[in-house]
Amino acid sequence: MTTFEILTAAQRAKSALAAASTDTKNQALNAMADALEASEADILAANQLDLEAAKGKIGDVMLDRLALSPTRIAGMAQGIRDVALLPDPVGHVLTEVVRPNGMTIRRTAVPMGVVAIIYESRPNVTSDAAALALKSGNVCVLRGGKEAHRSAAAIVQAMRRGLTSVGLPETAVSLIEDTTRASSNELMTAVGLVDLLIPRGGKGLISACVANAKVPVIQTGTGICHVYVDAAADLEMALNIIENAKTSRPSVCNAEEVCLVHSAVAERFLPMLKQRLVDDRAVNPVELRLDERAQAIIAGVPAGENDFDTEFLDYILAVKVVDSVEEAIAHIGAHSTGHSEAIVTADDTAAAKFTTGVDSAAVYVNVSTRFTDGGEFGLGCEMGISTQKLHARGPMGLMELCSYKYVITGNGQIR
Amino acid sequence: MTTFEILTAAQRAKSALAAASTDTKNQALNAMADALEASEADILAANQLDLEAAKGKIGDVMLDRLALSPTRIAGMAQGIRDVALLPDPVGHVLTEVVRPNGMTIRRTAVPMGVVAIIYESRPNVTSDAAALALKSGNVCVLRGGKEAHRSAAAIVQAMRRGLTSVGLPETAVSLIEDTTRASSNELMTAVGLVDLLIPRGGKGLISACVANAKVPVIQTGTGICHVYVDAAADLEMALNIIENAKTSRPSVCNAEEVCLVHSAVAERFLPMLKQRLVDDRAVNPVELRLDERAQAIIAGVPAGENDFDTEFLDYILAVKVVDSVEEAIAHIGAHSTGHSEAIVTADDTAAAKFTTGVDSAAVYVNVSTRFTDGGEFGLGCEMGISTQKLHARGPMGLMELCSYKYVITGNGQIR
Repeated sequence: MTTFEILTAAQRAKSALAAASTDTKNQALNAMADALEASEADILAANQLDLEAAKGKIGDVMLDRLALSPTRIAGMAQGIRDVALLPDPVGHVLTEVVRPNGMTIRRTAVPMGVVAIIYESRPNVTSDAAALALKSGNVCVLRGGKEAHRSAAAIVQAMRRGLTSVGLPETAVSLIEDTTRASSNELMTAVGLVDLLIPRGGKGLISACVANAKVPVIQTGTGICHVYVDAAADLEMALNIIENAKTSRPSVCNAEEVCLVHSAVAERFLPMLKQRLVDDRAVNPVELRLDERAQAIIAGVPAGENDFDTEFLDYILAVKVVDSVEEAIAHIGAHSTGHSEAIVTADDTAAAKFTTGVDSAAVYVNVSTRFTDGGEFGLGCEMGISTQKLHARGPMGLMELCSYKYVITGNGQIR
Repeated sequence: MTTFEILTAAQRAKSALAAASTDTKNQALNAMADALEASEADILAANQLDLEAAKGKIGDVMLDRLALSPTRIAGMAQGIRDVALLPDPVGHVLTEVVRPNGMTIRRTAVPMGVVAIIYESRPNVTSDAAALALKSGNVCVLRGGKEAHRSAAAIVQAMRRGLTSVGLPETAVSLIEDTTRASSNELMTAVGLVDLLIPRGGKGLISACVANAKVPVIQTGTGICHVYVDAAADLEMALNIIENAKTSRPSVCNAEEVCLVHSAVAERFLPMLKQRLVDDRAVNPVELRLDERAQAIIAGVPAGENDFDTEFLDYILAVKVVDSVEEAIAHIGAHSTGHSEAIVTADDTAAAKFTTGVDSAAVYVNVSTRFTDGGEFGLGCEMGISTQKLHARGPMGLMELCSYKYVITGNGQIR
């Protein structure tokens, strides 16, 4: 089927999904999980073809992301079952008011409609995204990476068996067949056919969406996250937070990329930082890229022009000395991607300035930036982390996949 | 100043506005209202120049919208003072949770940043929009119509005196000087300088924004609103609602444009409709544009190809006979702009089908569509009526001019 045909069929499935009861959706999710496990052999065979085709073309890290195993498939199935346990956002009454003329106005959560997701090579995104879309009453159109296409197709085929077994249309979950850039562009411009587009990928994909999209988009992902060590910081706490934010998983978007240090503590703190992140680490020592003032205190690589504007996703940390919390806020305002930033301080005034002045999705006081995550925030799941301010910001759970409508009931009120 | 210079200055004013206390903002609003009244002579003189320049170029209705008087200026000032009385949305804690690791996560309302508004010739939009933006902590960049430019400039000048009198930057409210299409296009594409663009105008402006905007946009306004008279309708109630929805103010977006009638009551109801909307009205009788089945019952103009897809904004009503609530829902899905639709029925099942199946901002049961309005909904005000599903839907009050951020506080939590 062409992308247009898939989207048209998805639009037709909208009303059935929007009207589906919580029970039906949960039954569908459990049936999808069962079907995924029952199709293990088919999915692994398809994955094997993907892996053979990809060998030599993509790096080992990407190959590992692409590879499925019985354990990973069981994990995907469990992920779907977990979504069945989450509360249904659809129909949730957000506000209710009775007006003086007697009419009742309820603001009620409703699905967005057709949600398209552009993603890359991890096959588990296929089942995660489908499960979250279904639970929130949305029809889901998936456009995965070329390398994982056979695996994704086998996963979608299995999930569709689950859908139809409970009477929902199989077009509630679709996979775009065209894996060239043309289909991404078509999704970005399918006004009236795509109600929400969520690009999950690197900087290039997100920028292309901002530049070309005519449909509603939520930008996700890229994180140039900062930790600011204030004059009033508990320096041992700051060290622990930075070590965690930088080294626990450097490839993710909530990892720290830049450390700002107040000049009043820089002479004490920077040697401690170098000890912890560089000298004490036999494996994966962190490369410190230092501004001029930091270079005067510790040894490291002089920071280049772009080092304060780069998402390293690696064991690299840019370090800068600042003279005040205001200077830290201004630097973050100029260089951050609006994802997650932290201050370490015992000074409530500095903390309040920071949380007010920093315009990012998640602003932390004495906590690692690594917590920006749907699960860690208690949402139970996430479709991605929004770095925009319209609609959803930060981890997007089921409620963030919904819009709302006003339902007004009365007995003949006129104005 | 160029549009770019104005936007750059607006960006610099963001932090002062975001950090302004409720008291400061309210003092600023009252000072702006006072300054508006104190500048009455200047504003009227500027308005006189606008009116003279516009005479012969725009119609009488538009000239009336453009014209100011001491009463209208007093009304604008009162409008600003009313906004000062509304609750401040900024800092409102939307959700709060303490996680098992002891960190507290607060989802807190924050301003969007720089909000740009493109509007047409009504000078009162200048003060309304500025007041709503200010109260919600946003910097406001106004791009009004050419015809009203001198009036808008005088109003902004007065409001700026109010702003500076309480120590807020005058760049919190700016008027774009370039009134050619170039400045609209510049606002639509000013990525990083405009945090939210709200076009308030006709279909052409909205379509241009959807086609060209690279910045976050909220579509407002156009309303092809439907009233469906169900088989189980109280026909007298239906008549009253339709008369109100169609004739009380036909030029507004929440006026009815299309009437759908169930075939089981069409033979009884349509003659009553013709009597009330046509025969009984000496002044402004409604022109009925009828589909074939309605033509078989009453006299009227045969509906043309586009009559079910037109926002008439006039004493014209398209009428169609349908065989079920499902057919009504399907017709609305295919022809509505997603603004406001009503069902008149005494049947709860039909009402539930309608409110679930109709995907519009406001869905009414036994109430006129004319209530879709910030004031009528109890929001106290509105910046416009969103017809999109991302972020805000329906009347946009102060809360809808805000985003949120997550503020997480702890004592050294790491992951």
